[in-house]
Order: sequence, then C-alpha cells, then structure tokens
Amino acid sequence: MQIGLIGLGKMGGNMRERIRLAGHTVTGYDRNPEVSDVSSLAELVEKLEAPRVVWVMVPAGAATQSVVDELGGLLESGDTVVDGGNSRWTDDEKHAEELAAKGIGFVDAGVSGGVWGLQNGYALMVGGDKEHVERLLPIFEALKPEGPYGYVHAGKVGAGHFSKMVHNGIEYAMMQAYAEGWELLEKVDSVTDVREVFRSWQEGTVIRSWLLDLAVNALDEDEHLERLRGFAQDSGEGRWTVEAAIDNSVPLPAITASLFARFASRQDDSPQMKMIAALRNQFGGHAVESKE
Amino acid sequence: MQIGLIGLGKMGGNMRERIRLAGHTVTGYDRNPEVSDVSSLAELVEKLEAPRVVWVMVPAGAATQSVVDELGGLLESGDTVVDGGNSRWTDDEKHAEELAAKGIGFVDAGVSGGVWGLQNGYALMVGGDKEHVERLLPIFEALKPEGPYGYVHAGKVGAGHFSKMVHNGIEYAMMQAYAEGWELLEKVDSVTDVREVFRSWQEGTVIRSWLLDLAVNALDEDEHLERLRGFAQDSGEGRWTVEAAIDNSVPLPAITASLFARFASRQDDSPQMKMIAALRNQFGGHAVESKE
Amino acid sequence: MQIGLIGLGKMGGNMRERIRLAGHTVTGYDRNPEVSDVSSLAELVEKLEAPRVVWVMVPAGAATQSVVDELGGLLESGDTVVDGGNSRWTDDEKHAEELAAKGIGFVDAGVSGGVWGLQNGYALMVGGDKEHVERLLPIFEALKPEGPYGYVHAGKVGAGHFSKMVHNGIEYAMMQAYAEGWELLEKVDSVTDVREVFRSWQEGTVIRSWLLDLAVNALDEDEHLERLRGFAQDSGEGRWTVEAAIDNSVPLPAITASLFARFASRQDDSPQMKMIAALRNQFGGHAVESKE
Amino acid sequence: MQIGLIGLGKMGGNMRERIRLAGHTVTGYDRNPEVSDVSSLAELVEKLEAPRVVWVMVPAGAATQSVVDELGGLLESGDTVVDGGNSRWTDDEKHAEELAAKGIGFVDAGVSGGVWGLQNGYALMVGGDKEHVERLLPIFEALKPEGPYGYVHAGKVGAGHFSKMVHNGIEYAMMQAYAEGWELLEKVDSVTDVREVFRSWQEGTVIRSWLLDLAVNALDEDEHLERLRGFAQDSGEGRWTVEAAIDNSVPLPAITASLFARFASRQDDSPQMKMIAALRNQFGGHAVESKE
Repeated sequence: MQIGLIGLGKMGGNMRERIRLAGHTVTGYDRNPEVSDVSSLAELVEKLEAPRVVWVMVPAGAATQSVVDELGGLLESGDTVVDGGNSRWTDDEKHAEELAAKGIGFVDAGVSGGVWGLQNGYALMVGGDKEHVERLLPIFEALKPEGPYGYVHAGKVGAGHFSKMVHNGIEYAMMQAYAEGWELLEKVDSVTDVREVFRSWQEGTVIRSWLLDLAVNALDEDEHLERLRGFAQDSGEGRWTVEAAIDNSVPLPAITASLFARFASRQDDSPQMKMIAALRNQFGGHAVESKE
Repeated sequence: MQIGLIGLGKMGGNMRERIRLAGHTVTGYDRNPEVSDVSSLAELVEKLEAPRVVWVMVPAGAATQSVVDELGGLLESGDTVVDGGNSRWTDDEKHAEELAAKGIGFVDAGVSGGVWGLQNGYALMVGGDKEHVERLLPIFEALKPEGPYGYVHAGKVGAGHFSKMVHNGIEYAMMQAYAEGWELLEKVDSVTDVREVFRSWQEGTVIRSWLLDLAVNALDEDEHLERLRGFAQDSGEGRWTVEAAIDNSVPLPAITASLFARFASRQDDSPQMKMIAALRNQFGGHAVESKE
Repeated sequence: MQIGLIGLGKMGGNMRERIRLAGHTVTGYDRNPEVSDVSSLAELVEKLEAPRVVWVMVPAGAATQSVVDELGGLLESGDTVVDGGNSRWTDDEKHAEELAAKGIGFVDAGVSGGVWGLQNGYALMVGGDKEHVERLLPIFEALKPEGPYGYVHAGKVGAGHFSKMVHNGIEYAMMQAYAEGWELLEKVDSVTDVREVFRSWQEGTVIRSWLLDLAVNALDEDEHLERLRGFAQDSGEGRWTVEAAIDNSVPLPAITASLFARFASRQDDSPQMKMIAALRNQFGGHAVESKE
Repeated sequence: MQIGLIGLGKMGGNMRERIRLAGHTVTGYDRNPEVSDVSSLAELVEKLEAPRVVWVMVPAGAATQSVVDELGGLLESGDTVVDGGNSRWTDDEKHAEELAAKGIGFVDAGVSGGVWGLQNGYALMVGGDKEHVERLLPIFEALKPEGPYGYVHAGKVGAGHFSKMVHNGIEYAMMQAYAEGWELLEKVDSVTDVREVFRSWQEGTVIRSWLLDLAVNALDEDEHLERLRGFAQDSGEGRWTVEAAIDNSVPLPAITASLFARFASRQDDSPQMKMIAALRNQFGGHAVESKE
C-alpha cells in the first residue's frame, strides 16, 4: 500500500526503509531536503491517492501539533493520520477531535525499538477506532518484528501512547535495577569479576532479559564504565508515567525512584544536600565541606 | 564423578536428577527417608570415595550451620563442601574457616532456576579458591544451562552467594517495575486490553525478558489476577541486599522500594498510616476512618 | 477596613471571626443562607465601598473559577480579589490575567492554620504585585499570628500558593517521618512505652515540633491508635508538589514516598502486589494467598 | 551526688559542666590530660565512693567496648555503668550481660542536644532495670531540659539507644523534608524570596519546628547556601534505623530515601548512573557524556 511518512530522522528514516523492504510505497517528507522525497507537506499529500494514510514521526509537542494542524488543512475526509512519535497520551484526544471535525481519522502508535528496529522490527502499541486501525494493518505488519508478538491494538485513542509511556516507565525501573546491582557488586572486594557475573546471568536466571544483554555489551566495551560520566537524561515518558500515576492515585515507588535518580545525576551539586549539611552544622557543629 | 547431595526438597531433588542425567553418581541424603538414598550423613560420607565432594542444599541459617558442623566431624582433609543453599554471604567465610581448620575445602554456590531448573538448567554463581572450584566443574557443567552462559566463578569465598543475593535484589526491582506498570495500565479506561499489551511486549521492546514471559503466563491463567491477594513474601536475599548496600554506602532506591512494598503488602492495617490519619485529624479536623 | 469574604465554611467562618475581632468590617457570603451576611455575590459587591477588596475562600478548581468569573463581571477597575483557597498555583496566573483585563487586581494567599487558626492565627504566604498586596496588609495583619512570623510576600502572582503547596509537601514528609518512627518503636519489644518516648521528645531533641505535640495529643486520646484505620487521604497539594518537582527536574524522594504511602493506604488490596505474588508463583512455585 | 564521667569531648565536656552546675560532683576522665580530672580509669574508680556510678561518653563500637571491658575489671558489685554514647542498641544487651556477671548494673542512655545541650538541656532516652535507672535520676534531672519533657525511661536495656536511634531516623527524614522543599522553592522564578518564606513559616504553620528555626539561622548566614557543598555525612543511627526496620519488616520509605540521598551526595560520580547512561546508549544510540 501507499503511505506518507513525515519526519525522517534516526527513527523515521529506518522505518521508511523497513516499510519499503516489505513492498510498500513510502513517500517521505523531512525539513532536511537531503533525505526528503518531496519538498513540502502539500506535495506529499498531493502524491498520495485518497483515501490517504500519513504517518507523523516528529518530536512530541509543538512540532507534532504543527504537523497535525497543517495536515488538517491539507487532507480530506476519509484520510487517516497516525502519530508514531512520543506524544503525551493527553495530546492524542485533542488531535483526534481536531481531525475528526474534518472527517479525518486518527491513530496513535507508540513505537519501541530504537536503533535496533530496522533489523529486528519495531514493537507497536496502537490506539484508535477499529476502522482506522485496520486500514493500517499492512504497515504495522511491515514494521513489527516477525512472530506473534510486537503489535497490540491497546484500546481507544491515546491507548497506544499510554501503553508505550508505561513501557518506558517500566524500562526506567528495570535499568535502575541492573544499575543498582552493578554498583553494589563493583563496590565489594570479594566479587572479583563483575562483568563475568553479568555475562553468566544471561541464561538460567530469573533476571535474564534483553537489557541484561545490552549491559554485557556495554561492559565488554568498557569493563568498569570508566569512560562515562554518571549523567542520565530522561526523555519525558518517565515523567508522564509518574504524573499519570498521581492522577490515578497509583503508587509507583520504583519507577519514581528511577526518575529521581536521573534528575540527581544531572546536578553538579545538590541544593537539598547543602541544606542537610547546613542543618547538621547548626545543631551538631558538624563540619561542612565548603566550596573551597 | 561421585557427589554427595544433602537436602532433597523441591530444589535438591531436581538437581539430583539433573546431575544423574549427566552421568554422574549422586548419593542423596534427606531427613525424609522416602526420598533419601542413605539413612544418615555418616552413611553418605562412608559411601563416597575420598577425596569427597558434598553439596549442601538445605535452608540457610541454623539448618546449614548444623550440616556444616556435622560434616566437619565426618569428612577428611582433602574433601570439599559446597553450600548451594541461600546462605547469607557473611556465613560463607565462617564456614570456610571452620572447615579449613580440618583441611576441608569450601565453595559457595548461588543457584538460580526455581522450578524451571530441571529442564532449563540452573544458573550458578560460585565463590571459593580456584583449586576447590575446579574439582566441582563437572558438576557445575551438569547443572548449568546449555550454552556459554549460566556459570561464573565470581571470586573469593562468599562471592557466589553475594552475586546470587544481588541477582535477587535486581529481581525484586524488575518484578516491581512490571507490577507498577501493570497496575497503572489496569487503572485507566483507555487501555482496554492490558494482557494483550503485556503479550505484545514480548518482542521488539526494550523490556522483553523472561519475567515478562512469566507475567503473560500468569495473566493467561487469571487475566486480572482476581484470584490472588496482593500479599508478597520475601525470602531474605532482598533484605540482605539492602543491608549490604548500607554497609557499603551504596544507594539502592528502587530495590529498597520494592522490598518495602512487600513488607507493606503483608500488613492488615498500616500503623504508620494510622499516625498520618491521627495527625491530619489533629491539625485539620479531617475525618478519620475508625474501626467502627 | 472593609472586606468581602466569600466562603464561610470551617476555614472561612473562623477567618471572618478573627478579622472582625481585629476591628475590621467583614461582609460574608456563603451559599448556605444560615451563615451568610448577604444573599448573593451581587449584594456583597454592592455593600462594599470602592475600591473593594474581596477574599475568596472556596474549594480550589471549578468553585474558585466560577467565583472569579462572577466577580470579574461584578467588580470594577481598582478593586482587588484575593484567592485564599487551596488553588493550584498554575490557576493564579490565569485568574490574574482574567481580572487584570478589567483593571481588577489579584493576590493569591496560601493559608495555613487549620482548626487552630482562629486562636493562634493563620500563617499567610502571599503572591502578587506590591500595590495589590499592600492594600491587604491590615487584613493580613489581623489574620496572622502575633509576633514577627507567619506572613510573607513570597513573590509574583502564584508565589503564595506555590509556597503553601511546598509547605504542605514538607508537611507530608514530616508526618511520614514521625509515623515511620512510631511504627518501628511500636513493633519492638524492648521499648515498653512508646507514647512516653514521644512525649519526652517535646523538649531538648532535634525533632521537637508542633506536629510532634499533635502526635502526643493523638496518643493521649488513643495510646496505640487502635480506634483508627490506617487510611490517609490527601488533599491535592502533595500531588502538585511532586508534579512541580517533575516540571523542574528536582528529586523529591521523601515527599513522594509519603504521597505514595497514602495512595497505598487507601487500597483494599494492592494490584501490583498481586502481580508480584503471581510472578513468584510462576518462577518459584511459591505459594500464593488466594481470595479463598 | 558523685559520678564518674569518661569521655570529655564536645558532648562529654559540656555535660560535665551542666551536671556540676546542678551541684553534683563529677570526676572526669579523658585520654587528653588537659581536660581530664584524673590520669587513669583506675584512678577515677578509686576516687568514687561505692556504690559508684560511671557514665561512659565515648565513641560507639570499639572505644565503648574497651571502656566497658576495663570498667568490668575495676568496678565492684553494686556499681552502675551508663553508656550515654551513640552505641547500637544491639551492643547494650551484650554490655549488660558482661557487667551483670560481676554484679554491676547497666543503663543505656540516648542523648540528644548537640551543641545546644549545655544551655537548653539534653533530651534523655533511657533503658534498663528500674533499680539501676532510679539511682541515676538526680543526674538525669541535672542533664535534662527544664519542664516536664526531655526524659523518658523507655523500657528494658537497649530501649534508650533504640529510641534515640529512631529519633535520629525521624530527624533524617525531617531534614530531608525541609531540604527538598527548599530546593524546589529555590528553583522556581515566581518565588523571589525563599529565605523569607522559610522565616515566615516559624509561626502559625503545620511545619514549625526547631529544625525549621535552624534552617532560618543557616539561611541568615548564607542565603542560598552558596558557601557549602551538597555533601552530607551520616553518623550510623540512620543506617541502624533502616536495618532495624528490615529486621522487623517495617517499611520506612521516607527515612530510607533520606539516608540514600546522603550516600549519593558523597559520590563524586554515580556508578549506577554510568550504567543507565551506558544502557541508553546501547538501545537508543543516545549520546553519553564521557570523561572527556
């Protein structure tokens, strides 16, 4: 089938290739003319036969909103827009309503796979009305990994991004789990080869996983991670997961601890720990470390 | 080779079978005569040719201590004892010294695999002197999963149990990660099929793992886990992991949160939340829920 | 001076009394005619001489919005509205802009004091432009506790509610601190009189505080809090504090733990702990507690 | 009455002064001859009339053990030893048994007050048999603050140090509460005077406390704590509190979070965050910050 794909960055570019390899026709648009197949969104829409399918793969927030707005003006009733970016699930309903007013369908798709997706396939979590989702099935089939897993129609509009968001929240805590264990093992003297302990865990243990395999890869490149700084970014979904938990009165202690550990990792100095030091000094006369 | 195996419960019994399937001779002892090959530890020791290897697979603490003490009196210089139970790593050095005084070697082996070990193999994390560990290699080879992983000589005496303990600490936080994500997904309306979301994650995602596969199995048996109570035991290793972290000044927020969530799950009513309710009532006149 | 006061519930009613005791003229309005001085907002506005000052003391969210909207239509340029309720700080800027369009000033005031405020005074944290805040000083003076403390002009519009929100976040963690300590003391055998331990802490310790005094009051009424359930509500500010922290990449582990402990206290059964139990059963054959 | 006091450091020296001001006779011993009243423990014991009372105020662990051992050899049946240091409660029972074998009584006393104790009095939490505790009452009376609070006989041997340990655990979480709130307030633009917000909280709020007063003192010395590093020591009691909680299956999320925040504050770089960065790079090609 035919599909338009907007956003040809690291993710979008690889997805275009994987869809084409499955035999579909992809017309890609990107602001960067070197990778773009067309010179404007208008040209992209023109090139597609109605009813059109357009997959949006641009940064969440303002960029996605702007593309959705522009597509609302270019597309026709019966067309379908898929937001495959990392949008917050609360944006999906707004986008769906905005487009529905013009008869345009909307599907949200959470996409997991990172740099491995081109080769292994992308896991897809999809939200939207059945009629819109079903039009997309050949594309989902092309993108997803082989085998029975890696695709789910999770529910209504927003359910795809919500599921992907929770996936990332879980990912935060799993990464934190391995990271905490690794630090503790590295700290004690009796364990003399932590990398080999991690490597051995790849079979027969309760904690074997793809993330564990990646940890072993990382340790093979740099046994004690001495070339890295302990500085971890976060990309939004972890924050949204905690916010969704608060909205729903669900306690998420491990996921939240993992998010906060990242926040702390990015501070040169901790203001709250200055206050702790100041208070200890006030009541106990404890020495403080000063800036010089 | 020949080996004595003490403790033929759920784990020990299956391990005897797996070692025998690999062609070794196992003499097993258990207090339960129905499963025991011999009627006493003394008889077990008598049946083995020197230098003997005896694998202890009994509950950590008093039971293991008692067997080690008794073996200290029965075995000879040149024999080797393996503690494959869930002993605390701090016990290992004591046991090693006690036996070394009689010329008996000591190896600690953390064993992972649970009810799946007979079929898939047991992951083994081993601590001890090279000479003692190497005598055991044929047995480790028989127990471990096929392939390159699932066995490590982690370091000195204690390193095996320490590594297994950290494995379990990581396991706590990974389980908590999936559990938190599952609860949040179950709570929102837009996601209409949480089980299928979990199932889809088994390929192509960052969070695919054996524990995820087990979660899907569990949901296939009971889609919303309605037949279970939210009551989670802990078996000691999680506690020891946190204690080891405290000894080493290593922050373990996610693992500790996971342990505390289990503690809380076992309380009929939370004393600390009574105090919160009492304080809110004191300063704000907020209604409290009384026992009626 | 003259002031209109909208909302005469537990807080508003006492505040009217305290302002009157200071010699000011308060015209109060409440939907409940039994406590109201006037029969409508229109009548309240009519009774006040321009430039008017109206203090809004109704529930945050829709109720406050509705009163602000209505006042926007009734008041005149030069009048001032104070929102003394528990509004989210993000609402303040919206309300200020809405009223500023009509020349009406806006001040946000976070108010602490609960049922003790009438007697001891209310702590006030105020945000807004200096000119609007200064008009209110006689009222703030009447409401605040005697002495040098209990009032601050914290900054721009929103700063009052933001400061009060953080106050409540701190309060959550302080209450949790005492609650955790109390539970631990109650659990051990060697400490035979926990209430007397708490009582003794009221002088000479690092942890003496007003909340501690309240804890002792509560224990004097019910030594082991046996008449309460461990069930703790939360009123919004704790959630907003965590959300503000996430917006600002500030780690708040203790405050967030305190919020989550309240969430958990309100669950009859913990879904996430069901998943933990299910996973333990899957890999270890561990017994689970079923619903019977 | 007469008392021997061993250890005349920051705490012990001030305590000697406060006891003397109350009219008692204190014979002090310290390894530092400049502050010591006698030249040896033997001389100290000799100077006291039987039945003697000796207060030990030396660092917990080896130092206290050594003094207890030496006193066991010097004192006689009917004498009483008080351990007023920061000993772990688990040491108390050992010391009590060791001395009881010689007919010597033992009392454990947790002492709070820091550098303010000389002036305000020391809060005392005491454990031990009634007969031994009652002999000490005149000394406790001299040390404690005036008024009805600041002293408790908490229970059996160990209960004093256990109560003091929990006091310190609570203190950790209270300090963390203020520190988290302060960091959040400092981070936002709308709040222009955080120090004045803290100052205002000293009356009329739910969170007024002595620690809050100290925080204001600290901010008066250094408004944004710019002269300090965010580096916080811990003195043992926080760790023991968490360990006691684990022993008793009591969840302590806020206190433990406070302890871990201190651990993290003392790391130049976070090993666990290196692992997070490494994993993000592995699966997402996310940039990492390298050491240069």
